[in-house]
Amino acid sequence: MASTLFGDCSTSSAARLLPLHRHTTISLLFRRLLPQSLPRQLGPSRTPTSLRALSFPYSTSSSPSPAPPAVASLAGEASATVIDGKAVAKKIRDEISAEILGMKEATGVVPGLAVILVGDRAESATYVRNKKKACGHVGINSFEVHLPANSSEEEVLKYISEFNADPNVHGILVQLPLPSHMNEQNVLNAVSMEKDVDGFHPLNIGQLAMRDREPLFVPCTPKGCMELLHRYGVNIKGKRAVVIGRSNIVGMPAALLLQREDATISIVHSRTSSPEEITRQADIVIAAVGQANMLRGNWIKPGAVVIDVGINRVEDPTSPRGYKLVGDVCYEEVCKVASAITPVPGGVGPMTIAMLLSNTLASAKRIHNFH
Amino acid sequence: MASTLFGDCSTSSAARLLPLHRHTTISLLFRRLLPQSLPRQLGPSRTPTSLRALSFPYSTSSSPSPAPPAVASLAGEASATVIDGKAVAKKIRDEISAEILGMKEATGVVPGLAVILVGDRAESATYVRNKKKACGHVGINSFEVHLPANSSEEEVLKYISEFNADPNVHGILVQLPLPSHMNEQNVLNAVSMEKDVDGFHPLNIGQLAMRDREPLFVPCTPKGCMELLHRYGVNIKGKRAVVIGRSNIVGMPAALLLQREDATISIVHSRTSSPEEITRQADIVIAAVGQANMLRGNWIKPGAVVIDVGINRVEDPTSPRGYKLVGDVCYEEVCKVASAITPVPGGVGPMTIAMLLSNTLASAKRIHNFH
Repeated sequence: MASTLFGDCSTSSAARLLPLHRHTTISLLFRRLLPQSLPRQLGPSRTPTSLRALSFPYSTSSSPSPAPPAVASLAGEASATVIDGKAVAKKIRDEISAEILGMKEATGVVPGLAVILVGDRAESATYVRNKKKACGHVGINSFEVHLPANSSEEEVLKYISEFNADPNVHGILVQLPLPSHMNEQNVLNAVSMEKDVDGFHPLNIGQLAMRDREPLFVPCTPKGCMELLHRYGVNIKGKRAVVIGRSNIVGMPAALLLQREDATISIVHSRTSSPEEITRQADIVIAAVGQANMLRGNWIKPGAVVIDVGINRVEDPTSPRGYKLVGDVCYEEVCKVASAITPVPGGVGPMTIAMLLSNTLASAKRIHNFH
Repeated sequence: MASTLFGDCSTSSAARLLPLHRHTTISLLFRRLLPQSLPRQLGPSRTPTSLRALSFPYSTSSSPSPAPPAVASLAGEASATVIDGKAVAKKIRDEISAEILGMKEATGVVPGLAVILVGDRAESATYVRNKKKACGHVGINSFEVHLPANSSEEEVLKYISEFNADPNVHGILVQLPLPSHMNEQNVLNAVSMEKDVDGFHPLNIGQLAMRDREPLFVPCTPKGCMELLHRYGVNIKGKRAVVIGRSNIVGMPAALLLQREDATISIVHSRTSSPEEITRQADIVIAAVGQANMLRGNWIKPGAVVIDVGINRVEDPTSPRGYKLVGDVCYEEVCKVASAITPVPGGVGPMTIAMLLSNTLASAKRIHNFH
């Protein structure tokens, strides 16, 4: 079954990535996933446990490196539990809907998310459309500004400034990438810290890195990864965690988040000489490197939990679209070794926008002091 | 010789730490070191190489984990090169003096450092005195405000605000710890980003963590560690680096700095289950945990470079002071395994204040656009 869906890793790892995506960020690729259909599950479907109730109580600080606990292998041929990001994301959206309703009834306030889109990239437009749809479903007001590609940076900054001041807007998202004549850093830094629902402001990142500090927002994709670990009851404290990739939007904040929960982290990147050797030590692996099927079965310690953030297009003449989506992890191999794994699509992807909605709600609650 | 100076690790690791220091930070302990005498060197004294000229050119990305190159073991009984922080710090201070002279001649500007000291802690007063002396030696103007322990937070903030606006002040340092009735975070965040020579502002830390961003200042102690590695020609790119300790002022920024130079980092902390096993994989070890003699010889990979940031007082009835200073590393054991090691005292300690002077000069140059 796996091979039907994901192809043979040994060949697909050498498959030509479609050039369209070489310059886009992983985060943007996620955003395309939303309209996809439900992923075909390779292991048994498990209903995600509610919140952290299942978090296993045993302490791990004294034992060297036990296999992660809360997800069990199947009897017979080992096959990992599929971490069903689509189902978890739906549950989170339902929770958000209920909270928004309660907040509206109690205070009259409706959370609002503003998106600034510059230019005509089809992918960006798709994402903004999906975001609006997701906002609508949970009851968040959405505001959109669509500027032509030749707009000036000042125009973008002017809208950011207006949204910063607008009491109906609780989150501001600047759709990336911006046209090349704009300074992305200037634009992102202009978003008010209190409305930085993407969590990309360096002040938020600094507070994420520092002990005894609390960021106002955590970037959506790594937050989604952590939420999956929590909701599947994966114990993090004292575990070895390896993050593959050190991007500002996924790898680096994911490592900081794991460390905040007392994992012992290692960060593997393009300059690492023996990535497989280090990865094999991990109880928890987060792969966010953007390379199709890079993590083979022999990279993974038996029983590890594997979160696959990568979303890569590889050619697939048998598909009506001409391509298929695969992760950074060779699913068909790793699902036989890991105790739990996220599929691609349907794993981390749907969590990103759920976390954006969650950050927007949290912002509205904070601004209006509603608990 | 080693045992004369550092005692027997197997006993001194169990030695009672003097309670005086249990609540102080590693950074503060450093600051006491300045008046200490030159460390007795256990290996041959090597003149530190100038800048990065000795950085070995071979690429390491293809070889798994070669021993760090630029520092060689002695023939005969293996003994690590002693990384002479005191000598390097002196050289840096000389360089800073020359630069300040040149800047003064060219622009008339003299760099200025302001220190705010609240209360009567003897250690803090000693540090402030040493800092003033060090400023004087290199030609930096120093400004000092000494407030009584019962001052209000508002008074401290008022002085910060004045220094923020004062064109003669290019660096502001709030001596920690503050009295307990003050909110350290509020006070530190009030220091202008442009004058945050301690590098503790979360915005600076965020920019340190993010790729393609540049912090205005890097915290002094981890910057000193990196400077020692650079000046001894230690190759960092592609190396395994383990940082022990995850404090905001040393461990965390040290890990981020190593990663910025393409090391593969792991961060070991109090919740790590097999710290020695992970540390043994490292080509470069930075120990900043504040526990006397914790790292034994068998924690270290032969040929590794070891930077010992810890400064711990242990009882020593044979000393006139009644105590001696030891690092986090069991020097007498590790110097036989490592290829290079910093002594305590005389290793990282003297570098901290040298980096403070360096940050202050850099700030003045930036503010006055002098290159």
